[in-house]
Amino acid sequence: MAVNIYDTANQLEQELRGTKEFKELQAAYTTMQANESAFNLFKEFQEIQMQLSQKQMNGEELTDEEVQKAHDLADKVGNVDEIKTLMGKERGLNQLMNDLNQIITKPVQELYQG
Amino acid sequence: MAVNIYDTANQLEQELRGTKEFKELQAAYTTMQANESAFNLFKEFQEIQMQLSQKQMNGEELTDEEVQKAHDLADKVGNVDEIKTLMGKERGLNQLMNDLNQIITKPVQELYQG
Ligand SMILES: [Ca+2]
Ligand SMILES: [Ca+2]
Repeated sequence: MAVNIYDTANQLEQELRGTKEFKELQAAYTTMQANESAFNLFKEFQEIQMQLSQKQMNGEELTDEEVQKAHDLADKVGNVDEIKTLMGKERGLNQLMNDLNQIITKPVQELYQG
Repeated sequence: MAVNIYDTANQLEQELRGTKEFKELQAAYTTMQANESAFNLFKEFQEIQMQLSQKQMNGEELTDEEVQKAHDLADKVGNVDEIKTLMGKERGLNQLMNDLNQIITKPVQELYQG
């Protein structure tokens, strides 16, 4: 390759750090982390989500108890301002990442549609 | 932003088209597509895979019949040279895409590990 594609990926990474979306996510995370009870709840929620998505990826059905526990935690999490704000910023960054990903994977999408 | 991050993503997309990995995938796809029976089998396999991963994402368990059908198709597909070659090239491109993705998502990974 004439240009090293990894250099461009690293450039994109640096630029991502400078976006409004990333900076706001970073600020929201720091604020959330500074509140111990919010941070503990957030970590618990993350762990449950990881466990359940792991099970789903393995093709295992979730038990009613697991679904209930995830819903209960989601309710709790939705009542903590610091986490609500963080999740809003996650959605903002995800939107940006999806847009970028859409662009980057275009060659492959086109190939498989053709 | 001083630099438009979308410009960089578009640059990455253009560079991706020029990589050995993408060009070889493209060539393998064209060869596979030119063989009608290989292409038909490939499309059938793709469709089944999409249906099953959709079910899994919905948290539904796969029936034994579905798992069997997917295995049978995978066996058939594994015996068609054009598709075997294509799949090898898919693995090559996936490796590259994963590497790039690892770089680009580093800021977010770091934030959530911190
Ligand atoms: Ca504590
Ligand atoms: Ca036919």
